[in-house]
Amino acid sequence: MARPALWTAIRDRLGKEIAEGHYAPGERLPTEAELSARFSVNRHTVRRAIADLASSGVLRSRRGAGVFVASAPLLYPIGDRVRFRKNLDAAGRMPGRRMDFLGTRRPDSEEQAELRLPPDAEVYVCEGVSFADNVPIALFRSIFPATLPDLLDHLSEESSVTEALRRSGVTDYVRTRTEIHARRADAAQAVKLGIGEGDPLLGTVSLNATPEGIPVEFGKTWFAGDAVTLSVGGAG
Amino acid sequence: MARPALWTAIRDRLGKEIAEGHYAPGERLPTEAELSARFSVNRHTVRRAIADLASSGVLRSRRGAGVFVASAPLLYPIGDRVRFRKNLDAAGRMPGRRMDFLGTRRPDSEEQAELRLPPDAEVYVCEGVSFADNVPIALFRSIFPATLPDLLDHLSEESSVTEALRRSGVTDYVRTRTEIHARRADAAQAVKLGIGEGDPLLGTVSLNATPEGIPVEFGKTWFAGDAVTLSVGGAG
Repeated sequence: MARPALWTAIRDRLGKEIAEGHYAPGERLPTEAELSARFSVNRHTVRRAIADLASSGVLRSRRGAGVFVASAPLLYPIGDRVRFRKNLDAAGRMPGRRMDFLGTRRPDSEEQAELRLPPDAEVYVCEGVSFADNVPIALFRSIFPATLPDLLDHLSEESSVTEALRRSGVTDYVRTRTEIHARRADAAQAVKLGIGEGDPLLGTVSLNATPEGIPVEFGKTWFAGDAVTLSVGGAG
Repeated sequence: MARPALWTAIRDRLGKEIAEGHYAPGERLPTEAELSARFSVNRHTVRRAIADLASSGVLRSRRGAGVFVASAPLLYPIGDRVRFRKNLDAAGRMPGRRMDFLGTRRPDSEEQAELRLPPDAEVYVCEGVSFADNVPIALFRSIFPATLPDLLDHLSEESSVTEALRRSGVTDYVRTRTEIHARRADAAQAVKLGIGEGDPLLGTVSLNATPEGIPVEFGKTWFAGDAVTLSVGGAG
């Protein structure tokens, strides 16, 4: 426990420089060797300061690539009406969506129950990746009743689910329920989100319905845990 | 891709036996060697069936201890009034709390802002572990204004925060805001929760206030990611 103040002093100095914008969000920090030389301390001391800033979320370490200044997590409200584009706009981030799969199939038993479909019903499936400022932040899979007129065409033409639903006659929809869990990313999820395998994901399972209570979308989303904070209630 | 049906048949058989209660939640599955012998297949085939059941959440592998039947995650509603005991009772689980630290200190800047405290104010700090059926499910840290009469005494005497607040004159409080994020457990958190270091945590940051809007509790909770699903809206 000799010189307890040394690593904390370096931590505080780096934290201050980051807060003042000398290092921008997403920017790579100098290497341990460079910081050791700059502060005239050994690497262990630098490493401890960096580890502390990483555990408090100021820095983010990427295996093999170095240590980066963390971007502030996107605050994503889960309210009565959850709209991806509005949420991103409100956070000052540029929304983007890439659809990887669009198709028709039989629902599984969960989808059938959630969407309250008759036994012989089919569903539309829409899968893809959501972006904020061109950085992938979430994977999504949305399931819609295949009875919604021309929805598959509208989903393939519109990057906005809200707009596609509107063109199929669903002028408004509300969030009925959201369930939120934490999981480790598997290899495929990690590659798509640009994170490490085993990194934490914030998963949501949600149901959207018309204001009259007719289910229109059963969705599952996997947010990169370091990219997004969900908020419930209040003004954020 | 020879015999694609073999591992899926074993997966389906094990899944059926678990669903029918031949293996109870929390029970350890037979070893790979035992299952190989039972089904007359090699271990690789058994391993693939187990991996698939684990990825769908039916089984849970614990390093060095074997493979266990997963307990259903506790569905924990985040509504207008979030009460630990009521949430556990509603889920048919026995609530428990252990307080590890109770004390008085100066607030940090976040706590001061959230609780809207004057510059010279102090806060009460209450830290501990929450249990469901005697299994640790969450770590919590609650911060209260030190102006609440005798709250520290009441917190030390009552295992229920709601009851301690009531005895200090706060007869009702509502959840103003909850923010939810996913993180990896650090070593200390993992030990307290009986999970692995790096396992996902579901973190919440929340503010409770009187119905008149006076903040009474600023809380941070870290739920074990495999133990809890948070729910927002609807009947669950």
